[in-house]
Amino acid sequence: MLSVTILGNNSAVPAFNRHPTSQVVTHDGQNYLIDCGEGTQIQMIKYKIRRSKISHIFISHLHGDHYFGLVGLLNTFNLLSHTQELHVHGPAALQSIIDLQLGVADIVMCYKLHFHVLSGYAILVDDDKITIRCFATAHRIECYGFSFEEKAGKRKLLIDKVRKLKIPVSFYGSLQNGLDYITSRGRKISNESVTAPPGPGKKYAYCADTRYHEEMIQHIYGFDTIYHETTYLDNLREKAFNRFHSTTKQAAEIARKAMVGRLLIGHFSSKYSTLEAFEQETRSVFQNTDIANEGTTYEV
Amino acid sequence: MLSVTILGNNSAVPAFNRHPTSQVVTHDGQNYLIDCGEGTQIQMIKYKIRRSKISHIFISHLHGDHYFGLVGLLNTFNLLSHTQELHVHGPAALQSIIDLQLGVADIVMCYKLHFHVLSGYAILVDDDKITIRCFATAHRIECYGFSFEEKAGKRKLLIDKVRKLKIPVSFYGSLQNGLDYITSRGRKISNESVTAPPGPGKKYAYCADTRYHEEMIQHIYGFDTIYHETTYLDNLREKAFNRFHSTTKQAAEIARKAMVGRLLIGHFSSKYSTLEAFEQETRSVFQNTDIANEGTTYEV
Repeated sequence: MLSVTILGNNSAVPAFNRHPTSQVVTHDGQNYLIDCGEGTQIQMIKYKIRRSKISHIFISHLHGDHYFGLVGLLNTFNLLSHTQELHVHGPAALQSIIDLQLGVADIVMCYKLHFHVLSGYAILVDDDKITIRCFATAHRIECYGFSFEEKAGKRKLLIDKVRKLKIPVSFYGSLQNGLDYITSRGRKISNESVTAPPGPGKKYAYCADTRYHEEMIQHIYGFDTIYHETTYLDNLREKAFNRFHSTTKQAAEIARKAMVGRLLIGHFSSKYSTLEAFEQETRSVFQNTDIANEGTTYEV
Repeated sequence: MLSVTILGNNSAVPAFNRHPTSQVVTHDGQNYLIDCGEGTQIQMIKYKIRRSKISHIFISHLHGDHYFGLVGLLNTFNLLSHTQELHVHGPAALQSIIDLQLGVADIVMCYKLHFHVLSGYAILVDDDKITIRCFATAHRIECYGFSFEEKAGKRKLLIDKVRKLKIPVSFYGSLQNGLDYITSRGRKISNESVTAPPGPGKKYAYCADTRYHEEMIQHIYGFDTIYHETTYLDNLREKAFNRFHSTTKQAAEIARKAMVGRLLIGHFSSKYSTLEAFEQETRSVFQNTDIANEGTTYEV
């Protein structure tokens, strides 16, 4: 299962008990952390996110509300004697910031930290379970979104047929992996006759901070779920443009044109004490929209 | 009135709803922020600390749990269109960190930020209300405590005498400032005959992160209240020494030898889920001890 848990859904200034940006994508026992605003490690404790399952951290851009919790988290891993290797993906200058802050604190890390510079449209992770890519958004400074594409899973057992043919339970895993079964009498039972093809892998994208930017549609087309910022309600289009952010209806328009299944919205300006209007406005253009609530896990 | 409000009383790893170090000293309408661990600005909102009243921020040392909330706070001041000048006092490398983080975010500050490098035993602020000094502690990296000495206040009116002599209310302020009063008939009423001397100014010291360090006693001798770290219970003296921290009884010993009025303890290791033993052990050496509870304001 591919899912995303929201840790922070607010823009730069914390307000109304909303926190700066962070979310955790979970797949097959791994946690992938996207952005790490101030207080993220405290939100992780609150929402019981397993820090030990984090192997990759992705930082979209170097505005503080997206990364000021990062070095504290790296330091916490160290204090907790983390041993797993950790991969941090971010804009180039982030490495200098990490090195400077660990350096002045005279910290020697007890685990291996790999830093990967984000650039263009690129594959960041590609294993037998998932493909993770970055893509550029249109923000005031260099900024990236991230897409998560689950690899197709295993074949599905047609359990009635499998049982009728008395195939041993110990062979079920092989059937799911596509193998045929040969009975003790030498009869071949073809895999296709007792299994169905796997469903398509799920796809999730985090579209980071951005102006209305149609160029990103190609990278998220047909995705099951996307998260797109809606810093402002739609009456503030000019302000959104000037500050390189998006409004409700702009996010909805991207979701509509990209033919995605569901839209999660967040990165709300601290000027708004309540969020009902965000949901209403966005749904008026793209019905299947939800507020990305902190502490909530959304199945993709 | 001189007081201190605790925003964070834990050591590096946030735990058990305790936060990294930060506290606010309030005097005569000004807030002086000491240390600014991750999440400090969120704690400020929770405990209704007026950000607009902060003119000086003091950072004891560059371990992240004492400053990772700083640049976020500086940025928030900017986003809130703060106009008041702000003074940040810290170890030299902090300026590079601030400059780097504001630089990569392409942020132009709307207020004037003055950076002051801490060094040795020095006066940081000295006006007609208060004197603030830094002094060195014994930590793994360069680290400073801060002392706050309220200037003696105004003379106290002996109100019965003042009224009996029919001195006009409009002259009360001048009497408090030490002036004599001349009646309309030319008779002089000496200030000493209608006022009493001001009480002594209150004194508070924040002793930062430190090993047991008797050299600091000279800087806090006879203070009304001090805050001294107790990262560990007293059975972990060796660990405390190796990590440049103090135990309960070591903090109490400093308070006892410095003849202070009250001891506040904090910077508790995340290994302790409860704090009762800290209070008990410290009180066994220095009775007038209190746990520095987050969200609590202590009058000095």
